[in-house]
Amino acid sequence: MPMNEKSADQIPDIADIFSAKQRINGAVRITPVLTDPQLNDELGCELWLKCENLQRTCSFKFRGASNAVALLEENGHQGDVATHSSGNHGAALALAASVHNRRAWIVMPEDSVHTKVEAVRRNGGEVIFCAPNQQAREKGLAELVARGCIPVPPYDHGHIISGQGTAVVEMSAQIPGLDIVLTPVGGGGLISGSAIAARALIPNVTVIGAEPEGAADTALSLRQGKRVENFPVNTIADGLRAIVGVLNFVIISDNVDKVITVSEAGIIEAMALVWQRFRLLVEPSSATVVAAVLAAPGDFSGRRVGAIISGGNVDLEHLPFSP
Amino acid sequence: MPMNEKSADQIPDIADIFSAKQRINGAVRITPVLTDPQLNDELGCELWLKCENLQRTCSFKFRGASNAVALLEENGHQGDVATHSSGNHGAALALAASVHNRRAWIVMPEDSVHTKVEAVRRNGGEVIFCAPNQQAREKGLAELVARGCIPVPPYDHGHIISGQGTAVVEMSAQIPGLDIVLTPVGGGGLISGSAIAARALIPNVTVIGAEPEGAADTALSLRQGKRVENFPVNTIADGLRAIVGVLNFVIISDNVDKVITVSEAGIIEAMALVWQRFRLLVEPSSATVVAAVLAAPGDFSGRRVGAIISGGNVDLEHLPFSP
Repeated sequence: MPMNEKSADQIPDIADIFSAKQRINGAVRITPVLTDPQLNDELGCELWLKCENLQRTCSFKFRGASNAVALLEENGHQGDVATHSSGNHGAALALAASVHNRRAWIVMPEDSVHTKVEAVRRNGGEVIFCAPNQQAREKGLAELVARGCIPVPPYDHGHIISGQGTAVVEMSAQIPGLDIVLTPVGGGGLISGSAIAARALIPNVTVIGAEPEGAADTALSLRQGKRVENFPVNTIADGLRAIVGVLNFVIISDNVDKVITVSEAGIIEAMALVWQRFRLLVEPSSATVVAAVLAAPGDFSGRRVGAIISGGNVDLEHLPFSP
Repeated sequence: MPMNEKSADQIPDIADIFSAKQRINGAVRITPVLTDPQLNDELGCELWLKCENLQRTCSFKFRGASNAVALLEENGHQGDVATHSSGNHGAALALAASVHNRRAWIVMPEDSVHTKVEAVRRNGGEVIFCAPNQQAREKGLAELVARGCIPVPPYDHGHIISGQGTAVVEMSAQIPGLDIVLTPVGGGGLISGSAIAARALIPNVTVIGAEPEGAADTALSLRQGKRVENFPVNTIADGLRAIVGVLNFVIISDNVDKVITVSEAGIIEAMALVWQRFRLLVEPSSATVVAAVLAAPGDFSGRRVGAIISGGNVDLEHLPFSP
């Protein structure tokens, strides 16, 4: 998987996403969608949650990782795989590798969420800790690649983006007549795959991203018309502490209607709301989508909204609210 | 709803359960089923969780309550409804009543789980606290009935049993080839409805109940061949702190193959396992089914097991394990 060459022909289309869907069927769960009429009355829109927190490894990341590893198999690329990850991609890659009897090496920042470190190990991955910054993560991965591991990037790759797009293929069949597709924005793997699928499958759809103010590099990049490479990231949404990828930014620029910035307090409020009303263990990154509906009700008023709940790997010891 | 006359002709059959399913379609969620291949390898069986914790009001109780209130409507019985409940039936009745623009009065023991009291109120119910014993609960309800409320019992009634049976109708379609249907046992509404549906719909099925040792009145009643009316109940599984009902015991005696008694420690271990592996907020009562698989692996070895996860209303402040 070459990571350094990015060009427009690496951008997947709906055919790539359908191929990914075929490839990962059986390994990946068709996750449920949930709505709550009472909450809808309060929100003023029809909000559906696509529960990727109930995906295997408890996040949507298993879709992209499964597609990427299955393609390595198809293309005859043998060997261990490796990545750097704050957690969910790491656990997903570990499981996807183990399904194909490969080892997976995961470079993780020392301050990773405990639950996510455990999940990587439970799924058969080898954890290598590094300092909590981008340079240390990339250096750790480069060392693994030098030892012969195949790198599987977390978001900035067509195979990953195609896999992540499969959640919207399911959701568009599960919920007829969607007006809006809404996803969190971190590195951009989920929203870029979702946007490509939504544009192809849902007539007149509006695609909206939700991004924490503490990691609002994508909104800034869109305003500047150019991908920001440095942004001081500081958010409770640990899954979104990444700078948007190169391919991802191109896809977002072309296909996403709006990115709503949500406050840290808004994320915590929304996380509590989802826990209380749906009894779903959702991680802070997932709560950004509900925070966006609370923060910008006018964008959603009267519309049927399909929001992707990205994952459920949260450390329960350090909850920012009384559950 | 006459509560005092119990006779065999009140025992529902599969036609009653299908009627209930028709009646409550739309109000009730078709809940997802989840399995985890890694966990299955560890358990030595294929365990599917039917996620009634993701039902509206976060427990299967909404099925029976919805059927009972809809039947009051059909039969022209107007007025407020009332019940006594440790919580899940109360919240379910509150919502079912509000769907039909009725008020619901719920007698709850003072030591009820905080989350469940909140849920009753959020769903529009009026809470009336009483001392935490059966006598006080029944006295509280009798006073409401004297004031003109229609009592809707939590489990010992054909309309409730028929509604609860609808979860197995769904599950038998969602998971082909089930060998075993496994549910918690408290008052017996869920297992009696489930057993009737399973016997009718799943060839050669084995029906197993899971009951906490601290509320093992049903196992004792089965051994004695006679319903025990007094049992010193003491279990973390607050949803199962009830003596099995009259109709329920008849149905269980005729249709349930086995009731497995699980220890309190086993319930806690199983609850932690479900939280960790599935990231599902399940309440202790739900965990009894997984505890049964852990306690009696020989009964499940190599079989395809559909286990009903009964609810998700647990107070997160007082968890008995480090999540």
